[in-house]
Amino acid sequence: MKADIKDPSLDAAGQLRIEWAAREMPVLKLIRERFAREKPLKGLRLSGCLHITSETANLALALQAGGADLVLCASNPLSTQDDVAAALVVEHEIPVHAIRGEDEATYYKHINAALDHKPHITLDDGADLVATAHKERPELIGSIIGGTEMTPTGIIRLRSMERDGALKYSVFAVGEADTKHLFDGRYGTGQSTIDGITRATNILWAGKNVVVCGYGRSGQGVARRAQGLGSHVIVTEVDPTRALEAVTEGYRVMPLSEAAKIGDIFITVTGGLKGIDEAHLLLMKDGAILANSGHFNVEINIPTLESLAAKKRRLRPFIDEYTYHDGRRIFLLGEGRLINLVAAEGSPASVMDMSFANHALCAEFMVKGKEKLAPKVYPVPNEIDREIGRLKLVSMGITIDTLTEEQRKYVESWEAGT
Amino acid sequence: MKADIKDPSLDAAGQLRIEWAAREMPVLKLIRERFAREKPLKGLRLSGCLHITSETANLALALQAGGADLVLCASNPLSTQDDVAAALVVEHEIPVHAIRGEDEATYYKHINAALDHKPHITLDDGADLVATAHKERPELIGSIIGGTEMTPTGIIRLRSMERDGALKYSVFAVGEADTKHLFDGRYGTGQSTIDGITRATNILWAGKNVVVCGYGRSGQGVARRAQGLGSHVIVTEVDPTRALEAVTEGYRVMPLSEAAKIGDIFITVTGGLKGIDEAHLLLMKDGAILANSGHFNVEINIPTLESLAAKKRRLRPFIDEYTYHDGRRIFLLGEGRLINLVAAEGSPASVMDMSFANHALCAEFMVKGKEKLAPKVYPVPNEIDREIGRLKLVSMGITIDTLTEEQRKYVESWEAGT
Amino acid sequence: MKADIKDPSLDAAGQLRIEWAAREMPVLKLIRERFAREKPLKGLRLSGCLHITSETANLALALQAGGADLVLCASNPLSTQDDVAAALVVEHEIPVHAIRGEDEATYYKHINAALDHKPHITLDDGADLVATAHKERPELIGSIIGGTEMTPTGIIRLRSMERDGALKYSVFAVGEADTKHLFDGRYGTGQSTIDGITRATNILWAGKNVVVCGYGRSGQGVARRAQGLGSHVIVTEVDPTRALEAVTEGYRVMPLSEAAKIGDIFITVTGGLKGIDEAHLLLMKDGAILANSGHFNVEINIPTLESLAAKKRRLRPFIDEYTYHDGRRIFLLGEGRLINLVAAEGSPASVMDMSFANHALCAEFMVKGKEKLAPKVYPVPNEIDREIGRLKLVSMGITIDTLTEEQRKYVESWEAGT
Amino acid sequence: MKADIKDPSLDAAGQLRIEWAAREMPVLKLIRERFAREKPLKGLRLSGCLHITSETANLALALQAGGADLVLCASNPLSTQDDVAAALVVEHEIPVHAIRGEDEATYYKHINAALDHKPHITLDDGADLVATAHKERPELIGSIIGGTEMTPTGIIRLRSMERDGALKYSVFAVGEADTKHLFDGRYGTGQSTIDGITRATNILWAGKNVVVCGYGRSGQGVARRAQGLGSHVIVTEVDPTRALEAVTEGYRVMPLSEAAKIGDIFITVTGGLKGIDEAHLLLMKDGAILANSGHFNVEINIPTLESLAAKKRRLRPFIDEYTYHDGRRIFLLGEGRLINLVAAEGSPASVMDMSFANHALCAEFMVKGKEKLAPKVYPVPNEIDREIGRLKLVSMGITIDTLTEEQRKYVESWEAGT
Repeated sequence: MKADIKDPSLDAAGQLRIEWAAREMPVLKLIRERFAREKPLKGLRLSGCLHITSETANLALALQAGGADLVLCASNPLSTQDDVAAALVVEHEIPVHAIRGEDEATYYKHINAALDHKPHITLDDGADLVATAHKERPELIGSIIGGTEMTPTGIIRLRSMERDGALKYSVFAVGEADTKHLFDGRYGTGQSTIDGITRATNILWAGKNVVVCGYGRSGQGVARRAQGLGSHVIVTEVDPTRALEAVTEGYRVMPLSEAAKIGDIFITVTGGLKGIDEAHLLLMKDGAILANSGHFNVEINIPTLESLAAKKRRLRPFIDEYTYHDGRRIFLLGEGRLINLVAAEGSPASVMDMSFANHALCAEFMVKGKEKLAPKVYPVPNEIDREIGRLKLVSMGITIDTLTEEQRKYVESWEAGT
Repeated sequence: MKADIKDPSLDAAGQLRIEWAAREMPVLKLIRERFAREKPLKGLRLSGCLHITSETANLALALQAGGADLVLCASNPLSTQDDVAAALVVEHEIPVHAIRGEDEATYYKHINAALDHKPHITLDDGADLVATAHKERPELIGSIIGGTEMTPTGIIRLRSMERDGALKYSVFAVGEADTKHLFDGRYGTGQSTIDGITRATNILWAGKNVVVCGYGRSGQGVARRAQGLGSHVIVTEVDPTRALEAVTEGYRVMPLSEAAKIGDIFITVTGGLKGIDEAHLLLMKDGAILANSGHFNVEINIPTLESLAAKKRRLRPFIDEYTYHDGRRIFLLGEGRLINLVAAEGSPASVMDMSFANHALCAEFMVKGKEKLAPKVYPVPNEIDREIGRLKLVSMGITIDTLTEEQRKYVESWEAGT
Repeated sequence: MKADIKDPSLDAAGQLRIEWAAREMPVLKLIRERFAREKPLKGLRLSGCLHITSETANLALALQAGGADLVLCASNPLSTQDDVAAALVVEHEIPVHAIRGEDEATYYKHINAALDHKPHITLDDGADLVATAHKERPELIGSIIGGTEMTPTGIIRLRSMERDGALKYSVFAVGEADTKHLFDGRYGTGQSTIDGITRATNILWAGKNVVVCGYGRSGQGVARRAQGLGSHVIVTEVDPTRALEAVTEGYRVMPLSEAAKIGDIFITVTGGLKGIDEAHLLLMKDGAILANSGHFNVEINIPTLESLAAKKRRLRPFIDEYTYHDGRRIFLLGEGRLINLVAAEGSPASVMDMSFANHALCAEFMVKGKEKLAPKVYPVPNEIDREIGRLKLVSMGITIDTLTEEQRKYVESWEAGT
Repeated sequence: MKADIKDPSLDAAGQLRIEWAAREMPVLKLIRERFAREKPLKGLRLSGCLHITSETANLALALQAGGADLVLCASNPLSTQDDVAAALVVEHEIPVHAIRGEDEATYYKHINAALDHKPHITLDDGADLVATAHKERPELIGSIIGGTEMTPTGIIRLRSMERDGALKYSVFAVGEADTKHLFDGRYGTGQSTIDGITRATNILWAGKNVVVCGYGRSGQGVARRAQGLGSHVIVTEVDPTRALEAVTEGYRVMPLSEAAKIGDIFITVTGGLKGIDEAHLLLMKDGAILANSGHFNVEINIPTLESLAAKKRRLRPFIDEYTYHDGRRIFLLGEGRLINLVAAEGSPASVMDMSFANHALCAEFMVKGKEKLAPKVYPVPNEIDREIGRLKLVSMGITIDTLTEEQRKYVESWEAGT
């Protein structure tokens, strides 16, 4: 088997990790059990460019159980769990091309190794397989049935390709499924961001002024969790409707130039650039803590922070203390990288369970309905979304009501305008 | 001036009501002030079929200030506040055709009186003006620029007409504006439902098992408010994703057949039929309280409740006690009608402020851009939605951030896929 | 039967009220059932000076069932429910001396009528029976076994009498029982204060700045309930530890001179004098709403508010608008009287259930153990407190664990220091 | 200087820790600054038997600044931070006798080394210095002015000694100060318990059934924090009033024998023995997680869990998986030891700040007023408690109101019963 991983001997540790994650991923488990019986992916080659983690491993095992011939590479050079990669290769005979900390050349070599597999289906977390296939390996496209894409950013790019007529095969927008987007920001990022900051600092949240920059779904999640720990939450926004939602939830809303003066902890989840910039850095109190849980480490203007500081030292593993010339100290966590990944363990497996289930069921859907697919970005079919919700409830032992025939007719007549 | 109201001498009391509502409707006040300067509706005839309440009166005054020649009729025979109608007629010279408790013939006579005004613009809360103009008064349609519609149900019907090619002029779906639908169910209905039940019963919410049937936006609002009062909240749903959201918020989710056995208070917000039916009624504990805050008084199967009872008596103004043959007592509030309207005062003015502002700004928008409108259902333009959010924030003394040029480019480049 | 009430013909309405309250008073119901079997108060004369309300009626019925020969008078001239008084007299043959709105002479005449009963036990809500017996009718004291007292203020005065050697019989401090003081402020006053303000104003709480003056138990309750409705809560305090608790709960804490500038709604629960005084009144925003839910209508300096106003008018039944010379309008609710009593229905019966149960069980306790009682203020015996908690749980269908013999020994050995 | 520590070369790392904790301990910093000016402890020998951690180090530095001649030993053989000990010795010249993991003989040798210092004041966290001085070194007692005691258990034992006439010098019950006991359980233990479980497991809390065994202050804190993360909280209790408080807060309350069947996570905070026993272990679902945050690792019956398991393995650093013969897996965290200490970092420094400030100010109080002290257990003087609250508020930049002369008289007249 061709594979390129750090160290196959790490497999036992990796296997334990996969098992622990499995415990919180009952939807994938149920899908895996059905796939094992029905083999819907039999005879198909799949290539996945995903974070090589214990959660992804559980997706891989479900796909494999469904009969898929699967190859994996990393969607980010820093997120690979080498022990999980080893377990996939050694215990489960799934070829993996991924080494934590790999350089750019290796990264793209691995993507091409995944494409060498001549996939019928591509699974993406950032559109790298789709993009590389289109740009560099057009000969592969003819045999590709379709793909899946996890990230909002990837979906935006694919839509842009679709508008330009450049997209040559169908891709399912997993990132926009209800069972993905309603849960991962508000519950996954919300909890894990607070968790990362707590692990980094061991601060008491109760009574602190916590400034949440950006009130999208992640911002909503972070704000709720901080409030749930007794913090006094301040939200900054650029969108009036979101700002109003934050006010109506009971948070204070103000410009960051005012919040900067009173915040104890600042958390950026804007999805943009320089949410915290020089003007704000200059206003902060001695002891302010900065963390980012948005897209990239550009949400806080770190170069400017560096230039403002007379002195810098590392106080704890994920805390850098910057001392201004006037003596004020600003604490930057995790070098401004995603604090929930850097200092904690990212979104809990329970959330990834549903996100990844969308990949698995979309792959099955493509195979069953392949003649009808056009080269465009498809929403995840509503019945898949509902099925995942249903399976999650089943796994929790929760049953819900169903409409009676009379009730269904009443609602439908309504929609029919009669 | 032609008008048909209960009693003009009620005007002083009505005027006080209008003023009190005005205090919580700063967005309409700001629009009214601008309209008074700019007169964007000058020379236009508007007909509004709306609940004739103190909040609607503030919309009417804003439209009048904008130069509109306005006539009003009631969108519901039971919701008219006769004193407000009097104040509109006597103090503000706005013709109103509405009498609380009017019969069906009078109701339609009043709608036709509003159409006799030969409106350029129709304002609807249930699509009655649009429907009557299309069905019975097609000669009016040629001069109508467009309309607005407040209710989801009305919008569904208009979309149905659009699909059938039957819709002859443009209508703006006010009911789907963010500043309407993100706030009125979760915050308006949420609070006022709890308020109505409290006024009816004076029960302590803390420690009670509260069963919320339906987890749409109103259900979310009711559940949050009940939890905020210390209740233990149980949600019933038919949609798996919504059910899962409820679980993830920390509520218990179960079939109503189980919840029926343990609930102290049941609140229906399903938007459907017989959410609480015979099977559930038979399972309830002695002392269970039932209230509806959904669409109509069909959410609880009241005829069956009547038939199950050996005895019925009115205990308090909005409480009917039904005693089963085995001695259990079930308490139905407000005869199953919308409890927030029956026993309290409906959605607070602060919420209606934004909903109604959408009517006013859509009317202005239609006039400014009338050449481009096709006969279809339009979403409220995003700039109007944002403007209303902005005005609400301004009225609260809240300022927010704006994107810098650099930040805007960063986000846009992102969306461009580069 | 001697009695002095407003109108005996109101008895049917009063009886419905008593029944509705009974539904939320299961502890008294369980006590009443046991008392009916065991007759622990047989042959004893009891006099109660209490608010004559539907909740008190349920206490009276429990005492009567226990064999007591009971007479009631009012502890406040304004709180009597005349229909309840009628029902007690006509339906239940309990002599009542109380008329809503009675003048001071009548009030004291009624207290003396209750003392004419030559009670073995006095039940007080403000120490009026104890005080009058000591001051004016010392001849009665010899036959009095003991009394109960509901209010903190009354208890303070009785302790003062005890210190001075003036107290001549034992009184049980019902107001300090856990099942009373842990629940009535936080849950009863908390909910009913918000309820009163909502009924008076119909404002939306979400997004409002709510200033809670005083963070004792009632203040804690009001703050929690306002936050639960989406308000942004600001607390003012004079005690540092309480202020710190408020901060740690996530509320903002600041001097009232600052809060005065930003508050939308002010609620006084200080228990003191002029919590809101001239300096604060001068700083308030146009539209500020003031309500009191503390001890008396002295918490807001109303005479000064009157003198500051250029104009005053009544806008709604419980809203007085004061307009300053500069045009700002301040809205005072319920003339500064307790807003939960004035505009709503006071603490829900469910809370009073436990408070009143303490009276009933203390009366029984006195009789059983009368030889041992000294003339001092006694705490409610711990076993009574626990029994009431237990009964409330039973009535909710809730069972709890009990310590095993091994666990009990472990805890006790601990306390023994071994 | 005599000292017995692990490794003096760890001092730099220890110093960083002390500094980071100092940032969250502003009350001790303010006390330290005043002590440095006023030297209230000049010429006095102090011996402290405390957890040797970064937070304690900040207390030590405040005492040293006050002029104290201080020696420290460990109050627990497992809690010593060897790097902090090194920093105290090397950087600050405070003799420390403490080595992490020391055996029992060494532990007592260290206590005696602290007593060899012939203290004027003893600082205890478990009464070891007091007890050893009384039992083994009575010759020291004559020169001891007084002591302080941190733990409820220690205080119980001292009270027992007092009752028996065995206590020979005064001890201040720091553990019962409001600024200690109102904050450390509810906020410190509450947050850090959740934190420890999250670090150990990375589970998502939202939607989980969390069973909190025991509803004392720590249980209240854990329940609030779990609810704040979206968990569904179930409380078990043996005390009816506490159980009722939990119900009234909106939690479900039931016997553990029922909760055992539905809980996903169980957290013991009972302060007793075998809160989770064989009967409960047998009822649990596959995948149940058990953690203890109460007094000792006896709250879960671990020997029985061992005997029930067919298989045991360590899955993650703080997770042991026990597999029953029927295949169910139970996960025990941190071997049942205090999970907030084992898997996280214990109570945040911000909470310890106030607890330790009580030691410092009580030491000062004893010196100033030593002639008046009797050999008994004293409450922390109210003025110290208030002063600590005041300093904490000052450090947060929060000012509060003070009573005017008129207000103070009003309240006092009240208390005087006039």
